[in-house]
Amino acid sequence: MTDCIINANRLIGRLQELATIGQRPDGGLDRQAFSAEDSEARRLVVAWARDAGFYSASDSAGNLFLRYAPEGTENEQPVMSGSHLDTQPVGGWLDGAYGVVGAIEAILCLKENGTRLKHPVEAVAWSNEEGSRFLPGMLGSASYVRHLKIDDVLGNLDAGDIRLGDALSVFLKATPELPMHSTSRPLAGYVELHIEQGPVLEAAGIPIGVVSGVQGYRVMEVVIRGRAAHAGTTPAKMRQDAMIGAVNVIRALSEYFQDDEDNTRFTVGRITALPGSPSTVPDLVTFTIDIRHQEKGFLDQAFSTIENMANLHSRPCRATVELLEILEPVQFNPTIIEVIDNCALHKGYKTLRILSGAGHDAALLATRYPAGMIFVPCENGISHHPDENATTEDLIAGVEVLTYCLKQLAMAHN
Amino acid sequence: MTDCIINANRLIGRLQELATIGQRPDGGLDRQAFSAEDSEARRLVVAWARDAGFYSASDSAGNLFLRYAPEGTENEQPVMSGSHLDTQPVGGWLDGAYGVVGAIEAILCLKENGTRLKHPVEAVAWSNEEGSRFLPGMLGSASYVRHLKIDDVLGNLDAGDIRLGDALSVFLKATPELPMHSTSRPLAGYVELHIEQGPVLEAAGIPIGVVSGVQGYRVMEVVIRGRAAHAGTTPAKMRQDAMIGAVNVIRALSEYFQDDEDNTRFTVGRITALPGSPSTVPDLVTFTIDIRHQEKGFLDQAFSTIENMANLHSRPCRATVELLEILEPVQFNPTIIEVIDNCALHKGYKTLRILSGAGHDAALLATRYPAGMIFVPCENGISHHPDENATTEDLIAGVEVLTYCLKQLAMAHN
Repeated sequence: MTDCIINANRLIGRLQELATIGQRPDGGLDRQAFSAEDSEARRLVVAWARDAGFYSASDSAGNLFLRYAPEGTENEQPVMSGSHLDTQPVGGWLDGAYGVVGAIEAILCLKENGTRLKHPVEAVAWSNEEGSRFLPGMLGSASYVRHLKIDDVLGNLDAGDIRLGDALSVFLKATPELPMHSTSRPLAGYVELHIEQGPVLEAAGIPIGVVSGVQGYRVMEVVIRGRAAHAGTTPAKMRQDAMIGAVNVIRALSEYFQDDEDNTRFTVGRITALPGSPSTVPDLVTFTIDIRHQEKGFLDQAFSTIENMANLHSRPCRATVELLEILEPVQFNPTIIEVIDNCALHKGYKTLRILSGAGHDAALLATRYPAGMIFVPCENGISHHPDENATTEDLIAGVEVLTYCLKQLAMAHN
Repeated sequence: MTDCIINANRLIGRLQELATIGQRPDGGLDRQAFSAEDSEARRLVVAWARDAGFYSASDSAGNLFLRYAPEGTENEQPVMSGSHLDTQPVGGWLDGAYGVVGAIEAILCLKENGTRLKHPVEAVAWSNEEGSRFLPGMLGSASYVRHLKIDDVLGNLDAGDIRLGDALSVFLKATPELPMHSTSRPLAGYVELHIEQGPVLEAAGIPIGVVSGVQGYRVMEVVIRGRAAHAGTTPAKMRQDAMIGAVNVIRALSEYFQDDEDNTRFTVGRITALPGSPSTVPDLVTFTIDIRHQEKGFLDQAFSTIENMANLHSRPCRATVELLEILEPVQFNPTIIEVIDNCALHKGYKTLRILSGAGHDAALLATRYPAGMIFVPCENGISHHPDENATTEDLIAGVEVLTYCLKQLAMAHN
């Protein structure tokens, strides 16, 4: 039996066609969850599935399933692959889209090759992965693995006070022909293909990242309270300068969380000072901390470490720390990791074991089913940005490895 | 001849009445330059001057002059006293207002006492001292001493894209009865009464500050440019984190400009980070520096020091520094200083020689005319804040000393 050959022109052409939906003047994409653009992307993908002869269905969370089950698939449980179609308000053309289009191409390749399968294979587009319009992000996959009930979040509002439930209802009506599957079904395996969204693979010159797991994170908000004072009239010794307090805290924490192995990711992405006049010593400086690590214990400890250090280093100001968001670390399934490794080897690609710093639907799937991820390098590590890009060569390599993985998993698995 | 006795109830009552115009829910004042509130305050002050029988006039910069010239004032050149009526967006009830209301009370006291004068005495309200809505600040006094031409700044915009010229035009029409004086006139002397806006007099327990001069300052904007990156996917060593760059620069500068004598005032009052998402390493952090000192040489040197240190400490990011505002240090007139000293002594008040850290209209007047300032203590040194306050006793003491100074200057001067 020969390997099936993917259709590279079809893959890249479809990615480019999808990138016209929600395109911004700066070349980026604005295709946020449950928007008109998100609906249009969904209709396009459903049309591709119809042309391919796949069986399409939706669920009440807005997840889209495109199933290929040739004669002989005696096992009910599908092998699934996909990602998401929604983007950040200023997103790129590959984040999410590559995983959905890549999965369709891989399954189509298996079909065109007449590969005999024990398991059905399904491409999936999870709804609202980004969470930029409606919280929470990774909504569709979280619903699928029953981490949340979709009914509990229907009242969440976007910035324009539109209810998630109303936007989702409009979104579902855009593809009225789809049957609705009521609930999640057990999976034989899940493999998600994604750009790395970081610089590691590119810097190493390696086309395939075999993802070992997803870092957990904590997002916190730190508030430093001092006393406002006139910049000209108040001697340094009599100040309670919230800016100096904040600077000392950020500096101390960024040094504390440095490690030679780069296991910890510490980021201060947002900061404001009030009252915000150049000639007034600020009395209130607020900043965020995003801290990521592969060990839950480390992250649990980080909050009190940050609280203690913020109090110590902000003196004579006072500091308070609030926890805004939590994601626990995830380890991917060892068997899936091994299959990806072997498939890349079989295809002649070098691989690197890599930990994902970004959250992905696969991290939720992994809490319940055997799951893994394949990364390909992206240009300068840039993502969530109009400049997000990857080489055609690497995009093709990723789908080749995915295709072989799906074949291995759907054939071999019981 | 006896000293005239000021009307303390009228002084405090008028300050309280003025504080109702532009009052914020938090008790602070929002009466920014050329706003409807600023116009209303101007009309109130003009009404007081009319009741007092003063001659009121405006100029094209929006300065308001309230003149008392009893029979016998043979010299054309007035002795002037005043301050400003505009406030910061979150200002207090005394900054500026005390100097205007105090001058009116002092002159009214001279009038009610029938004091014979050689010089006319004038109360003045300089326009747009704060500069919080329209740049530049100290607009009215700068125009009066010909440091700028009002026509050159009419195109300046506020945050709502309203032209300074349009706002000024509406402001001038609010008091249509006032004759317009076309240009600046020579002054025999200028004395400005103001709260200290700092903690020194209160800490020393001394009611009258005799101001020796005004610190000069430079306001700069520092921009740190790095590279945006995903907070989870980018190892610390591969980042160009503009936040870390900015924090290192602010920390290094604040340590460098510390001195035991507290001659230097270094403040970072505003900071922003872009793109401003908690999960993105910022590529652009912008902050202001306000640096004050009594020596011009020090301030001239400070710009290149800041530029060099910003470049050094922001690596691997790049730093640029832009000069936004300059005020040169000012020494007040020795004769005026002596008169204030003697008047306070005569009234039985202890004095402290003090350098002003804040800019004041008096600093501009001093570049052309004999000028000086009287400070009174303010509560906890707080200004530009709803909590701005001073004791009734100190407010009265300041106006008593001012009244005696104006009398000395208007009687004795040739």
